[in-house]
This record gives sequence, structure tokens and C-alpha cells, in this order.
Amino acid sequence: MNSAEDRITEWFAAARHLDPARFPVAIGDDMAQINLDGGKSVLITTDMLLEGTHFDLKTASLEQVGYKSMAASISDCAAMATRPLAAVVSVGLPAGYASRELKQLHKGIVSAADKYDCPLVGGDITSWQKETALVINVAMLSTPAGCEPLKRSGAKVGDCICVTGTLGGSGFGKHLDFEPRVEEAIRIAATGKVNSMMDISDGLSTDLARICHQSKVGAVLNAEAIPVSEAAMRTSDPLASALNDGEDFELLFTLPEKECEKLLSQWRGTVPITCIGKIVKGEQMKLRAPDGQLTPLKPAGYDHLADKETL
Amino acid sequence: MNSAEDRITEWFAAARHLDPARFPVAIGDDMAQINLDGGKSVLITTDMLLEGTHFDLKTASLEQVGYKSMAASISDCAAMATRPLAAVVSVGLPAGYASRELKQLHKGIVSAADKYDCPLVGGDITSWQKETALVINVAMLSTPAGCEPLKRSGAKVGDCICVTGTLGGSGFGKHLDFEPRVEEAIRIAATGKVNSMMDISDGLSTDLARICHQSKVGAVLNAEAIPVSEAAMRTSDPLASALNDGEDFELLFTLPEKECEKLLSQWRGTVPITCIGKIVKGEQMKLRAPDGQLTPLKPAGYDHLADKETL
Repeated sequence: MNSAEDRITEWFAAARHLDPARFPVAIGDDMAQINLDGGKSVLITTDMLLEGTHFDLKTASLEQVGYKSMAASISDCAAMATRPLAAVVSVGLPAGYASRELKQLHKGIVSAADKYDCPLVGGDITSWQKETALVINVAMLSTPAGCEPLKRSGAKVGDCICVTGTLGGSGFGKHLDFEPRVEEAIRIAATGKVNSMMDISDGLSTDLARICHQSKVGAVLNAEAIPVSEAAMRTSDPLASALNDGEDFELLFTLPEKECEKLLSQWRGTVPITCIGKIVKGEQMKLRAPDGQLTPLKPAGYDHLADKETL
Repeated sequence: MNSAEDRITEWFAAARHLDPARFPVAIGDDMAQINLDGGKSVLITTDMLLEGTHFDLKTASLEQVGYKSMAASISDCAAMATRPLAAVVSVGLPAGYASRELKQLHKGIVSAADKYDCPLVGGDITSWQKETALVINVAMLSTPAGCEPLKRSGAKVGDCICVTGTLGGSGFGKHLDFEPRVEEAIRIAATGKVNSMMDISDGLSTDLARICHQSKVGAVLNAEAIPVSEAAMRTSDPLASALNDGEDFELLFTLPEKECEKLLSQWRGTVPITCIGKIVKGEQMKLRAPDGQLTPLKPAGYDHLADKETL
């Protein structure tokens, strides 16, 4: 647990006790789960995208920004192996914006909503008086998809660490048109054997550190096994790109070795699953080089609040 | 339906058809309602507060801003006679902010959460790279409180138009420390006779126009009956202040005359209820002066998107 964002999140989680009977999953996971009377539950996530931080309108169209804002939240639903239900979107418009820009944004939002059957059911549109940057917030609901939502905190010593797809270099384009792994997550969770899961939004090294910290375990990754994306291969350090670049929006999950073998042998998906290492004792993360040498692996992904003091 | 905000909302509502069996209330009301399998439903609202538009840190503390951000959404829950369930909050921090500011904001958020039993269950904190304004988004869930959620669209010709509390001059202070009318709304709705309800966030004239437009009815307000707040009395035009100032966060509702008489005679609350006029045929709103003369009443409250072109 190294990033300023994580320290602040921990402070928020500790500041108020939530009844686990009503809120079995709360602050610190990809979504919060809320138990309703009668045995049903819903999950909720909220994500804010800021122009200049999360997107740049010099390189992304408003339609792409709309798609990304929805897809990032849909990926949170996938991260817990839940099914997206509905979304509400708030937009803060720069002074110069008009209905043309709103319609472009809306087009991207509904393209993601339609693709993942997660309708836009409400929103809030407001205008800055003086600021000149666009801000979008998506809040999304999901429901459990036939199993308990998968948390970050359940990884066990001996688990295999797996990822979907390929990692790194998302900034070259994938961060705008990625496909959240909803169906993959539900199929993986249907094995009933997955101990922990999340999506990789801030980079593998940072997000794996979260699973380790919350599960009180360590990890050893095999450098050779990490599925480096084609985009990452074009960088000067493809392995570092795969380990540390943010916004892969792939699944990161752990399950016992035998169950992993079974899953990999039976997996028929267009999106590959790769076992990249093992959960071990302790809270250290290490990287195993092809020659067998172990070096410490530091969380070096994106820290949204890197400039903030420690709480 | 006169404001740019309403025109844009209508465009969004028309752009995608939502199945009313799954979403009985959607875009255009205070909250969207989502039916879950098994007969349960939840409602959701999202509200974005922008520094310089919705609050000014020269005159409001961060704690007050935190309280207001939650209370505005709690008022949306009240507007439909539903009970707040849980909230998630996103914060976009200006570059200079640190944990001290976050904790002040958090203090205000949890004071509202505790008071209205609506816990903060998750959030997202992120930083602007260049902008210098604070942005807060609250998304809130609620559940029906023993009756169907009350919509804006149910007003009937002959209904009395009622409001809680007193109106106008909220900018002198009430807009920062108002008390959402959750218990009042649930008690009023428990009569089973209320045809329409909303909260007054953009000013009585603008919000009543929304009920009239969505219910396809008109309204006549009695100028003498409108409960003008003490703060509004200090302005140069107290009646205009009560009619058009935003952020009263009082309830506006309609019900048949006999039921209104019964409610008023039985009401034992510290918050008064006042009948201020009648629902009539047509979609015109009129104001009746003490001498009986009728003049047209225009929506003249706050329009969040007044500078935007017509869609």
C-alpha cells in the first residue's frame, strides 16, 4: 500500500464504521455492495474524468471521451464479476460548450451503454462560470451475476496470479477504445474458485500491490510470462510498460494452482488468460528474471494523488 | 418547459427509449427508478457541484460545501418521497489541495450522512493537472418508503399546490445549511393521495413550470399565500425572491383539495405546509394579486445552461 491515493482511501475507510451486514463490500474495493431487504443486493461505483488529467481533447474526440467514461465504470463492474445495470452521468461544461459538443459526448456514452446493456437513466448537466475544462462523472450500478462479488482481499498463498489480454502501452490508443471484460469476468468467476479479482486501471504493479496489501500476502511474478502488448513492444522498455502503464482495463485475479490449470485448459475465449506468477507469504512483491534471479517489484503505476502529503 | 436545461434533458430522454417495466421513472425526474428482479427497486440521482457556480469558497467553508453536496442529493430522495440508502462521492481537487482540505470536506459530507442515515460507501478522488477549481459529485441511492415514488408528472386539474417551509433568499445562508425534507415527504406521501411532488432547487416558478409541463396542466398561484422567508423579506422584492430564488430545497407537491384540507388540519410538524394555489387546465401559469387580478407567471428561476443554444 504505497500510493497517496491508497493512504487517503484507507483514512476514509477508517473514518466511519459501516455495518458489514448492510455493506459487505465498501470503501477500498472497485465497487461498494449494498444489501437490500429481501436478500437482493446492488453494487455502485463512481468515477470522475478530468480534462487534462484523464483525457486530452487534442488527441481524443468527445465521442471517445464519452465512451471511455462509461467503459471505465463498466470495467469496475467486471472487476467484481458483476453485471452492469444502469448509469447516471454528470457533466460540467466549459463556458464555450453548446449542444453540439453535448451530443457528441452523448453519442460515445450511449455506444458503451448499448454495447454492455447498461442504459443511461439519468444525469446532471451544469456549466462552469470561469473554468475551461470538461469534467465527467459516471456513477454505475451493477448486480451480482450468479456468485458473490469478487473482492481484492481474498488472495491465498499458493494462488496463481492471472491476467486477461495483454498489458502496457494503453496510452497509444487502447485507453480510449478498450473493451471491459464483463463476460470474461463472469465466466471466470463461475468456476467458483477465484479468491480475488480486480481490474488493472493504474498499472499491474500498483494494482497487484493492492491485492497483496488487502489480502496480506506477497507475490512473485515471472517476467517471461507477462503478456506484453504490441503497443508496449514499441516502447524503449516493454516489460516496464506492461508492469507500470495504467489503463489496461484487463482483469487481474488469483485462484488455486489446480483450478488455474483447469481454467486455462478449458478456456475458449477470444481474450487470452495468462498465469503470470504466484501468491506467496509476506507482503513483498518480487519479479523473477529468466535466469531465476529475484528482484523487488515496486508499485510504479499511476498515482492520482502523488502530489498530496501523507494523511 | 422553458429553460435550456429542460430542453437538453428532454432531448436526452427522447434519444434512447428505456423499458418502463425496468425503469418506471427515468430521465427528467428528480431520480431514476430501477426495478430489480424479485419486486424490489432502487432509485439513483447524481449531482455535480462546481466551485464558482454552486459555491464560493470566499463565503463557504469546505465543511459547508461537503454538507451541501450531500444535502442536495438527500433532497432529491425526499422529492420522490423515498428514503436515502447510501452515497458515493467523487472529488476533483485543485492542484494546491492536500489532506487537510480533504478532511474538512469529508467532515461536512459525513455530518449530512450521519444525520440522514445515508452512509458514504465509496468514492473517487482525483487531481486536476492545471485547473484551480474544486468539483464534487454525489451519486445517491434511495428506496421507496412504503409507497410508489412520487413523480412530477401526476398533477391533476383541481389539485391544491402546496409547499413546505418558507421560500426565497436562500443565498443569504440557507443554501449552505438547509435540512432536506425526508421525513416530511414520507409523512405527506403516506396519505396516499399526493399526485405529484418535487423539491424546489431552481426556484418555485421554474420548478412549478416543470410539474405543469410534465403533467400537461396549468397553475394559478395566490400571491398572498406564498410563504415568504425572513431572508427574502430583506430583499427589495420579497415576492419575486420567493418565486424565483433557487436552492430553497423545500417540497412542492399537489393533491386533491379535500385531501389537502385533511392534511393541513392534521399536520403536526415543525415545518409548516402552505397551500399556495391550484392546478388548472392548460399549460399556463398565472399569479393572482390580492385584488384578484391575474398576471402571467414566467419561470424565472435558475437555469444551469442559460447560455446554451436550443437543442
